[in-house]
Amino acid sequence: MTNHTPQWDGIVVGASLATLDAASGYGEIVDAALAWRDGLLTYVGPRAGLPGAPSALARQVIEADGWITPALVDCHTHLVFAGDRAREFEQRLQGATYEEIARAGGGIVSSVRATRAADEDELLRQSLPRARALVADGATTLEIKSGYGLDLDSERKMLRVARRIGQQLGIDVRCTYLAAHALPPEFKDRADDYIEAVCQWLPQLHAEGLVDAVDAFCEGIGFSPAQTRRVFEAARALGVPVKLHADQLSDLGGAALTAEFGGLSADHVEYTSVEGVRAMAARGTVAVLLPGAFHVLRETRLPPLDAFREHGVAMAIATDCNPGTSPLLSMRQAMQLACTHFRLTPEEALRGATVHAARALGLADRGVLRNGLRADFVHWQVGHPAELCYWLGGRLAQAVYAAGQRISGQGRP
Amino acid sequence: MTNHTPQWDGIVVGASLATLDAASGYGEIVDAALAWRDGLLTYVGPRAGLPGAPSALARQVIEADGWITPALVDCHTHLVFAGDRAREFEQRLQGATYEEIARAGGGIVSSVRATRAADEDELLRQSLPRARALVADGATTLEIKSGYGLDLDSERKMLRVARRIGQQLGIDVRCTYLAAHALPPEFKDRADDYIEAVCQWLPQLHAEGLVDAVDAFCEGIGFSPAQTRRVFEAARALGVPVKLHADQLSDLGGAALTAEFGGLSADHVEYTSVEGVRAMAARGTVAVLLPGAFHVLRETRLPPLDAFREHGVAMAIATDCNPGTSPLLSMRQAMQLACTHFRLTPEEALRGATVHAARALGLADRGVLRNGLRADFVHWQVGHPAELCYWLGGRLAQAVYAAGQRISGQGRP
Ligand SMILES: [Zn+2]
Ligand SMILES: [Zn+2]
Repeated sequence: MTNHTPQWDGIVVGASLATLDAASGYGEIVDAALAWRDGLLTYVGPRAGLPGAPSALARQVIEADGWITPALVDCHTHLVFAGDRAREFEQRLQGATYEEIARAGGGIVSSVRATRAADEDELLRQSLPRARALVADGATTLEIKSGYGLDLDSERKMLRVARRIGQQLGIDVRCTYLAAHALPPEFKDRADDYIEAVCQWLPQLHAEGLVDAVDAFCEGIGFSPAQTRRVFEAARALGVPVKLHADQLSDLGGAALTAEFGGLSADHVEYTSVEGVRAMAARGTVAVLLPGAFHVLRETRLPPLDAFREHGVAMAIATDCNPGTSPLLSMRQAMQLACTHFRLTPEEALRGATVHAARALGLADRGVLRNGLRADFVHWQVGHPAELCYWLGGRLAQAVYAAGQRISGQGRP
Repeated sequence: MTNHTPQWDGIVVGASLATLDAASGYGEIVDAALAWRDGLLTYVGPRAGLPGAPSALARQVIEADGWITPALVDCHTHLVFAGDRAREFEQRLQGATYEEIARAGGGIVSSVRATRAADEDELLRQSLPRARALVADGATTLEIKSGYGLDLDSERKMLRVARRIGQQLGIDVRCTYLAAHALPPEFKDRADDYIEAVCQWLPQLHAEGLVDAVDAFCEGIGFSPAQTRRVFEAARALGVPVKLHADQLSDLGGAALTAEFGGLSADHVEYTSVEGVRAMAARGTVAVLLPGAFHVLRETRLPPLDAFREHGVAMAIATDCNPGTSPLLSMRQAMQLACTHFRLTPEEALRGATVHAARALGLADRGVLRNGLRADFVHWQVGHPAELCYWLGGRLAQAVYAAGQRISGQGRP
């Protein structure tokens, strides 16, 4: 090569890559190089295949060992909330029943009360550390749901905080309006009226640019399939994609309903029937597994994993980060729990935390390492990618890059 | 007060304390002050009770919110080893049996092979990040066992690395000679001969200052009670305290045997009988619960928790950090798993990770916050100490102090 000015913004050389850029396997490339420019990947391949010396190709050259994977995508979180419920966790372990806790003002209503009471800055202040923890452990795309406000202004406040988290941390936040999560006290015994109200709020929130998707909690203790359908129709009228908390505690046909609307994902899905699985497969609806809630609630009913595999339903994994049932601040821990409780292989878990999770958010520009896709990747201090699912705790992420920017890593706050 | 030179090295004011300095309860002190000098605590109480202004009392004044607890004590680890077994973890999830893995050279023999092959510096290099992870999450005292060397030089190497970890990280490492862990290939079918050999090595290792306690693995797939007794007798002859991997997979009376020798702790203890519990109570032997292995192995048999409570046997919690059955790099995660799987209360779990864990190591100078004890404490970014058992993942330790020195914390590598 002649003496050109470097064209690429950065290049990492020497590490192994798990590109995941194939239908199966890690897509391993040893002694690799990964380059980017303007936030997009410009080279993914063996170091020996580079068209010149790294320093002639990129302004910044990073020598690395260990492994590089696509950055993790957490496609299901409720991480914006005020207060916490650690005391309630303690009371349960001291023998209090859910009913006693609810009578004492605990449960989701305590999160609603605290979230309503906090102003936007306070809500951001309390929520940011949770997002930062997820990023420090390798996530650069977070889905964040509303659903603890339960009135227009409070839901808007939650979604605005979610957007601000993305700006502050330099990551991509996808905002989901969780329209039907719980019934607020002012709508007691009037669930249908509440559903009509949220369908009124949706176009306003959407017009403010706060809604990337719409979600509901379809369950005996949540909202009915008919109410969920009403919410989905309101979303469809606006062209907004839907997803659902489906079939977690019983089979109400939530997964099939989601598929009927071409939904992005059906989440939890422990009780989804084979018919539900078939419907998901037909429409490409992703199954989002949430092993944190399974773990904390000590559930025993497994999602229909073999049916998902057999019918080719993509399985994503997410933290479900929330104060009641899944206080999970790490995608790696979600992957570990998915391997332990659901017997996913580490490769399935990694795929579920990257390419399938991206698909569950409708994002085709990330989740694998491939030329032209977003330069979102993590450099891990591991000897094999299976270690990402193996260790509980610890700090394995050496550096986390979002759109080519190093946003987290060892030795940084 | 007149204008004296400050007498204390440092003081933290404003946080709440969980002193644990009482038989039950957190020992909560709100708006507290905690001071130290020459590595020992000099004041533990309400800020309002200080004999003067903080800046007149201590050279360094730290304003804090959140909570301060005693530093955590990990009283059972195998964190010194070479290689890892993530690939084996993957093979198991891909359907390989333990037998197939063993035939392919996996299992503990692969850790033995890698540990023997690594020189001391390399073994230190591979082991340090694990110790550092435990410290970053709040531990300042670690027990580290040998047991992957299985010959005199390799066991010595492991114990020397354990000592060096303590020096490098500024923490207290207690070295346990795990004399009877597995049978090395050169002693195949000669377990009794191996036991005689380890009883010969013990005085040499002890004379080199490398043995704070002696341990064995008493199990059908390990060593017999008679062989364990032989090891314990050799330890007793040197005045070295004993502990045991006892009753993990079956009841061989290991807990009672440990108690008979006045042992520090019986560890795992899932199958310990009521007689074993009574024997432990009579001799003050601590029950060390290891929920990480329980989790990873998906065990269902619970330790006799109610019997321990009823008979007043102290319950400690440890990570059991090891490459085969408990790849746990965080005492908080061990506490979370103890609450989830064993239904310990958060207070029991915190006590098990501090005062009871210290007792399991024979250390009376730490584990609670009290004047005159070691200034080993952690400042946590939490609103309630139950949060230490509630979150999975995340970074809650704002600062970790060992003997009055800040050895880890946010914003530091
Ligand atoms: Zn959820
Ligand atoms: Zn052990």
